[in-house]
Amino acid sequence: MAATIAQPSSVTSLALAAKSAARRLAAVDSATKHAALLAIADALEARLPEILAANAHDLEAGRAAGLSTALMDRLALDEARVRGIADGARAIAALPDPVGEVVDGGRLANGLDFRKVRVPLGVIAVVYEARPNVTIDAAALCLKSGNAVLLRGSSSAAHSNEVLARIAGEAAIGAGLPDGALALVAGGGREELTELAQLEGIVDLIIPRGGEGLKKAISAVARVPVIYAAAGNCHVYVDATADLEMATRIILNAKVQRPGVCNAAETLLVHSSVALAFLPTALAALRERGVELRGDGRVRSVDPSVTEAVESDWAEEFLALILAVRVVDSVEEAIDHVNQYGSGHSEAIVTNDRSSARAFQLGIDSACIYVNASTRFTDGGEFGMGAEIGNSTQKLHARGPIGVRELCSTRYLVDGDGQIRG
Amino acid sequence: MAATIAQPSSVTSLALAAKSAARRLAAVDSATKHAALLAIADALEARLPEILAANAHDLEAGRAAGLSTALMDRLALDEARVRGIADGARAIAALPDPVGEVVDGGRLANGLDFRKVRVPLGVIAVVYEARPNVTIDAAALCLKSGNAVLLRGSSSAAHSNEVLARIAGEAAIGAGLPDGALALVAGGGREELTELAQLEGIVDLIIPRGGEGLKKAISAVARVPVIYAAAGNCHVYVDATADLEMATRIILNAKVQRPGVCNAAETLLVHSSVALAFLPTALAALRERGVELRGDGRVRSVDPSVTEAVESDWAEEFLALILAVRVVDSVEEAIDHVNQYGSGHSEAIVTNDRSSARAFQLGIDSACIYVNASTRFTDGGEFGMGAEIGNSTQKLHARGPIGVRELCSTRYLVDGDGQIRG
Repeated sequence: MAATIAQPSSVTSLALAAKSAARRLAAVDSATKHAALLAIADALEARLPEILAANAHDLEAGRAAGLSTALMDRLALDEARVRGIADGARAIAALPDPVGEVVDGGRLANGLDFRKVRVPLGVIAVVYEARPNVTIDAAALCLKSGNAVLLRGSSSAAHSNEVLARIAGEAAIGAGLPDGALALVAGGGREELTELAQLEGIVDLIIPRGGEGLKKAISAVARVPVIYAAAGNCHVYVDATADLEMATRIILNAKVQRPGVCNAAETLLVHSSVALAFLPTALAALRERGVELRGDGRVRSVDPSVTEAVESDWAEEFLALILAVRVVDSVEEAIDHVNQYGSGHSEAIVTNDRSSARAFQLGIDSACIYVNASTRFTDGGEFGMGAEIGNSTQKLHARGPIGVRELCSTRYLVDGDGQIRG
Repeated sequence: MAATIAQPSSVTSLALAAKSAARRLAAVDSATKHAALLAIADALEARLPEILAANAHDLEAGRAAGLSTALMDRLALDEARVRGIADGARAIAALPDPVGEVVDGGRLANGLDFRKVRVPLGVIAVVYEARPNVTIDAAALCLKSGNAVLLRGSSSAAHSNEVLARIAGEAAIGAGLPDGALALVAGGGREELTELAQLEGIVDLIIPRGGEGLKKAISAVARVPVIYAAAGNCHVYVDATADLEMATRIILNAKVQRPGVCNAAETLLVHSSVALAFLPTALAALRERGVELRGDGRVRSVDPSVTEAVESDWAEEFLALILAVRVVDSVEEAIDHVNQYGSGHSEAIVTNDRSSARAFQLGIDSACIYVNASTRFTDGGEFGMGAEIGNSTQKLHARGPIGVRELCSTRYLVDGDGQIRG
């Protein structure tokens, strides 16, 4: 049965069912997958009262447990949010099917024709916290890319996740996807997580979406491949030739527009030759938006009201209205700072100098490197991937936004007429 | 210092030096890398006596330790083998540089131009057994792809590896590559291997090339990403419409041409409708080449001299002149057999039926799936990649031959004119 809350003992059996479903799902045509995602979206809207009733249970339990206002807000669903979730599934339905895409090919010297084609990974487990919308986002991305999906949400959203997964599973099966292709793994303990993360040969990939505690818990026990949705200690560097008004717009956007996300800026680096011209205006604008500033000695010599930064501030992902600020003497010094303290996520240079831009883009070992744009664009939606399951700062397999293509593997298909090796 | 035998305590310091070198190496132009690989090849030939003297030490120690004839042969170098190693480095030099290749790109809705470009991974550790030629093959592939390389060979080849790595390191530095870009990690114990495999954030990838014992040892301790050079339980399936002469040629080639390698066939599946027409001739030809046959009941009813196969024979990578043989009633049954028992490496169907070929290629979850060709073609050289560091049966990052492109990551470079996110 898809989409029922499993007993802890059945993690492995759910995964085996998912593996069996994955083999059939890999051969399902695009039109059927498209129809299934639309059916999921329609069913979510049609069964709104069930969803809101289940969510009310979670909210009540959350209140009783004393969850913070922020967590309660992340947990809460209403009609608009459910319609948003359904529209998200429709947007994923509308994406090109990655399965079968030919990513390389040619004719070998011996006449063999080869194609390197995209194929589903198989079974993907997504482990996430709080927000129930991830249940549908993750399911839609995995199903679109032909993968069976095992979902494991947090216990605080258990009722909401259960009803969302059940509705989605029923709609998917009704539209022709194989039974077992979507299942929710229940049980609040770490035992099920460990079991899931050690199902070598059954689970092909596990993706944790959550805080550092969740990542560490999985890292400690995982035997199946993991892609970690990344932390982001992102930088904006204002070079000597920067358009200073543009630089102010960019650092304001990168820091303030949504400070709690991984592609928000955490450190501002400023070339010494423009520090006096740039910092007073920029820091005032940041402060006006409620940003707490922590600077080095040269920043504080321009603006003594800035708090003194300590070493750990350069390495911190604040995820809050806090910004570390430092003056550097060259683009090379900025590059070294980013490579030393950064998390390899997203960095931006504001410059009108070609060689500075080139040095910054070639010299920094991060997933996304911007010239004259905000770091906030590192996002599957913004990159035209339609949606993402997170951002990776790993160097293997997927770096940057993880969309439907990144949820695939490849396979070589080789056609001959009797070739043997000499 | 590159390319000196390190004391066990210096694994981490060698890796840190490699990481520092990797940053500089990533920016080295193609011409310099090309010249460095040619310099390595020339130096190996010029310093042949040093290499043979060191190899004689290893051979002497091997004899004293009672190494098998096969192992002694793998260990031995002579002038022809050294020239072969040098020519291998020249062939890798001649490959296109993967660094900087644009693998995706376009203009986003907001006017941002993005390029997804190939970049080196950083520091790659290669752990290998016996054959000293891997020292140069692995070094050349890593350097060509802009990666610093840490080599760890087996203690039985310590002297040979040391002199090969020293010559290569000196030649590379002389040609302009950064000091530290190539280093040999010495020490025969598992402690250094553990240390190497746990250098998170310093070593970007570890590739074991060797037997299952080595893979298990690394799997048990690794905290850095690993790509395992794969075992291969490969299949040849002879379909109802096969050209039976072609089928005989293909199974003979797949089984006999080089039985000790991962892309050799281990199981022959035959459609029941051609079992009587095909098996007597094919089995006789195999037996004539010294192949031991283990068959199911239906095979033995055609040829009672075939040994009875046991369940474990279907899952075994014999790496020897042994072949398991089974009769099936359909392509679907062949597909199920391969998916159940295979290792996901390379499979071949011999058929003249379009729908059988298509079902086999779409239905089997392996790295390489051939129609009317030998499984022996799964090889970087045969695939036009020039050389490989192994074959991967993993689904993430690299599946199939691991060449210079697979030793790279990607990075998004994004160019704008002041874009901020709304």
